Parts: sequence; structure tokens; C-alpha cells
Amino acid sequence: MPYHNTIVIAGAGVFGTAMAERLSWNTNNTVILWSIEKDVVEDINRNHRNTKYFPTHFLNTSIRATSDKQIFRSADCILLVIPSKVIISFTEEIKEYTKEDCLVINLAKGMSDDGAFITEQIPFPRTASMKGPTFAIEVLHGLPSSFTFGGKREDYDRFKKEVLKDTGLYLDYTDDIRSVELMSILKNMYAIAIGLVSGRFNSPNVDFLIYTKAVGEMRHFLSLFGCSTETIFCYCGLGDLGLTSLNDLSRNRTLGLLMGKGFSIDNSGSSATVIEGSRTVKLMGELTRERHVEEEFPLVQALYRMMYEQEDLNDYMRAVFN
Amino acid sequence: MPYHNTIVIAGAGVFGTAMAERLSWNTNNTVILWSIEKDVVEDINRNHRNTKYFPTHFLNTSIRATSDKQIFRSADCILLVIPSKVIISFTEEIKEYTKEDCLVINLAKGMSDDGAFITEQIPFPRTASMKGPTFAIEVLHGLPSSFTFGGKREDYDRFKKEVLKDTGLYLDYTDDIRSVELMSILKNMYAIAIGLVSGRFNSPNVDFLIYTKAVGEMRHFLSLFGCSTETIFCYCGLGDLGLTSLNDLSRNRTLGLLMGKGFSIDNSGSSATVIEGSRTVKLMGELTRERHVEEEFPLVQALYRMMYEQEDLNDYMRAVFN
Repeated sequence: MPYHNTIVIAGAGVFGTAMAERLSWNTNNTVILWSIEKDVVEDINRNHRNTKYFPTHFLNTSIRATSDKQIFRSADCILLVIPSKVIISFTEEIKEYTKEDCLVINLAKGMSDDGAFITEQIPFPRTASMKGPTFAIEVLHGLPSSFTFGGKREDYDRFKKEVLKDTGLYLDYTDDIRSVELMSILKNMYAIAIGLVSGRFNSPNVDFLIYTKAVGEMRHFLSLFGCSTETIFCYCGLGDLGLTSLNDLSRNRTLGLLMGKGFSIDNSGSSATVIEGSRTVKLMGELTRERHVEEEFPLVQALYRMMYEQEDLNDYMRAVFN
Repeated sequence: MPYHNTIVIAGAGVFGTAMAERLSWNTNNTVILWSIEKDVVEDINRNHRNTKYFPTHFLNTSIRATSDKQIFRSADCILLVIPSKVIISFTEEIKEYTKEDCLVINLAKGMSDDGAFITEQIPFPRTASMKGPTFAIEVLHGLPSSFTFGGKREDYDRFKKEVLKDTGLYLDYTDDIRSVELMSILKNMYAIAIGLVSGRFNSPNVDFLIYTKAVGEMRHFLSLFGCSTETIFCYCGLGDLGLTSLNDLSRNRTLGLLMGKGFSIDNSGSSATVIEGSRTVKLMGELTRERHVEEEFPLVQALYRMMYEQEDLNDYMRAVFN
């Protein structure tokens, strides 16, 4: 007997739309994109396009879209792909009319504004986190792509078997949800760190010297946050770090490249262009000092001094090579 | 008081010459290249060039070269950068007139012809292995570069402090020499595995999906060979795997790229063009079958079936994505 699931994807930006396309490859999935952007919803329903985010691409015609939050009533599974800072209030709002056993999977990256982990605040009993080495454009284009599923084992088994069947999306697993969330935040910071040396040296030897150090520091952070260090071996660990740090599609790497070439970047936080990784540098730079473990995190400290304490590029280079 | 060491580098090919250049940055090192190639020796001594291997580059004038094996009498430290299959006989020959406490460091990659680890057969009491994410051309060009030093802690401390000072070459450390040797062999095999999917998909998502699997398999191999799995975090582990698998300077990756594009490659072993990684696929493919652990090594098995059992490219792709 074929499974049938209704998947509602909250957020029709680049990642939500790309996931909708791929989940539609499994014809037993009913895939619905929910978005507050009415023009996007109309474009998808009428033209089978999301021109705002993917001006050149035609979507699978089975994908439908809506702005009506009542759609969540029908969801067996919700993918959260809206900005991280609105996730908690959003899930609280839909909770009252959503099926109680609905599986809610967070794909958004970043922490809440108060520094808490999003998945630990979502008010649903079945929550999970899904992150991996996946550029959205390549997910849209149909490339084999991988994620780590952090959650309950039975949810993983069912989601993999019923929902991801035939989609060309592959999972590995951990029950340590927090580690999945944490690494998705940390990798952006290290993408800046590696971008910085790439912008200066343009050298594989240098990139992989710093990449190796970054993996080591991420592992120390897992310990610091009480997570399993084993998850560093998951797709969301050293895989996603590599993808994000070493490919120019990455915004955080690009920030590092610019800094490595001497461009002056505003990290004040008031600018709309501030990039996730910048906030993480501030948060983790201060956290490691407060806990007196800064010596275990030389890359983070070097980044912090450069981005928030006016050290220059040569100071950064002296600090990271040793 | 400044240290002074005489370093004799056995082999004036690309890697030996590049190392000579960098060790000469520390003016307390006397750096001598030994080579059987008389034309290379003369070129270095007369023109400060090694035109045969680096037609465009001028070397530090302090570097001298010789074909006389008696030079090893003066060595405080020997770097072995000659082909792996001649290392054992070479070290046996020079042993009789080399200082007994000379530090002998193996930089050559590969196993002996009988499948043994080179460092376990070198007849000197102070031996070490040094491998890392380092393309020779970038070492020559002066880029910051990293290696893992596998050996005794006191040898590491002294070598780092006395010999590598001011060279821009950086070390991490393990006492598990065998793991350093093993990973330098394995990474060539996985560079083929990743090159294969790069040649087919040209996609970061796909590359890092397979890279993550490759790190996992390398870790299983460390266990299988009785090594410390901790060394996967060293420069010679996931760092060198990344460098070798993801950059087109790598010959083994290039072999994979060609195979991924459907070129037919002779892996018979009789050809002079056979590449290290091919032999490793054969060796490890058979070894994992004999030990009945092939299920832990799906990449190796898929490579083996494609390279030695006539499976085709689509079979390979089906096997590695899951």
C-alpha cells in the first residue's frame, strides 16, 4: 500500500521552493508551499514559476501554493523554511489548528534572537532538524543532495521511507538535534575564516590547513554545548562546513573573501546586509572568552579581534598560522 | 644559541625540491638535495634551478645538490622523497655510514610492493612520517602549508622547533605513524571516487555528499588496521583527503574525472600510467571482501566493481547514492 503524505512547506523563498520541487518527485507526496508573499503564491499557482526567486525555472505542475494559514490543518509534515527569527511565533500561531502528531522539521539556519536553539522552542511534540551540504539552486536543479536528520529515530525512518522516496535526497541520522542546529550556525563563521585566507592566498594548501583547524574547533564547540562530538562526521558537520567554506556560492565565504582582499565591511548589526556568520563570530567570540576557553578557539578569536576589535589582516594571518 | 642541522633530502623531484626551497628559509638549516639524476644535480649547483621539474623557477642559492651517497654521513635529518618502492633498499644501503641517531622522515606516499607500511621497514631507530594537504608546487611557491608529523614526541618537538622554524610549514602531531601512512594511501582511492561524481555532476552538493561518506570509510579503515581513529582530524586525514579529492591538480581526482566522463582507463598495472589510487582500490577492495566487511565500505566496493569487474558508470552511481 503506498504511503500518502501532505507536506506543507512554510516559506516559498529559494530553499522552500527548491525543496517543494524535489519532494514533488515522489508522486505520493502532496506538496504545498505556504507563503505570505501573495505575488509569489499567484505566480506558482498560475504560471508554475517562482519568478521572484528563480527567474529562469519552471516548477513541477503538481506543486500548489497558498497564503492561507488554514492549510496547516491538512499537514502531516511541515518544513520550516522561513527566517529563523520568526519561527517560534509562527509555530505558536499555527499550533492550535495543526494536527498534534504532525512532524515539524526545521530547515532554517540560525539561532533565535535570544541565543536559544530554535528546535528547543518549537511547541510541537514531534520536531526535527534537517541540515546538510546543499546549495538550494542545486536542490532545485535535481542534483543528488544530502542532509542530516536530527530527531527521533522513528520519525527519521518514516520520513526517509515515505516522504524522501524517489526524490534523490539522502539522509544520515543523529538523535542529537542540538548538534545539527549548532553546526549549521558554526559553519558560517568558519566559512568567513576560510574565505579570509582564500581571498589573500588563493591556495588549496592554505584552505585545507585552515579547514582542518576549523573542523577541530567545531568539535570543541560540540563538547562545549554538551553535544555528541560524533555528529561532526554527519553531512551537516564536516560536509556542510566544506561546502559552505570552499564554494563561492556561499555568502559567508564571500564575506571572508572580501575581507581577505581588504574590503571594509560593516559588521555593526544595524545594516540589513549583515551576514549570519558575523553575528555568530560576536556570539561565539564572547562566549569562549566568558568561559575562559579562548585558547581552544584560535580561529574564532582571530575573527573576533579582526571584526570587532580593529585588528588588521596581517594580525589575523599571524594568528591563524602556527 | 641557534640550532644547526644538516638536512639531506633524498630525491630531487617535485616534492624534494619544493621541500629544499622551504627548509632553506630557516638559515640555520644546511639543505642538501641528493639525486641519482646527474643533470638535475648539475642544474641546481650551477644555475640554482631544477629545470627538469620546475622549468620556470629560481631556487634559493643556498641549496646544494649531489649524487654522492656519502653525503648522508653528514645528515642530522634525512627526508625520504624517492619512489616508495625503492625506499627500503635505499635506506638499507645508506644505513652503514649514516649517524645512528639521524632522524629519518618518510614523505613518500604508497606502500611497499608487498603491501607493508614503509615506515615499519626502514632500518633506523628514529623514523617518522610526514604527510599533509600540500601540493608541491604551492610548497615551492611559498604558501603556508601543513603536515602531520607521525613519530616520537621528542622528535616532533625538536624538528618543529629547530628545522621548521621560519619556514611557513606547520605541523600537527600523532604518535600513530601507521595511521599517517595509511591515510596517505587511502585518500588517493577516495579522490578517484569523488572525481567520478564530479566528472558526472560538477556539483558541490554531490561532491560533499560523497566526501562525507569517504571520511566515514577512512575512519572505518583506521579501525580495521588497528590505528587510532582520532588521527582522522589531523592535517593528513580529512584535510589531505579534501585537498586531494577536490582540486584538479590531483592526479587521482583527474583519473576519477575522466572515468566519470566515460573515458576508458587501463588499470591493468602493466601500463606506466597506472595511478597509485588504482592499486589501492584493488588492494582494499579485495581486503574488505576477505575480511567480510564490504558493507562498511560501499565506495570502495563500487570503485572495485567498476575498475576491476566491468560494472558501468550507472552502476557506480546507483551504488554510491543511498
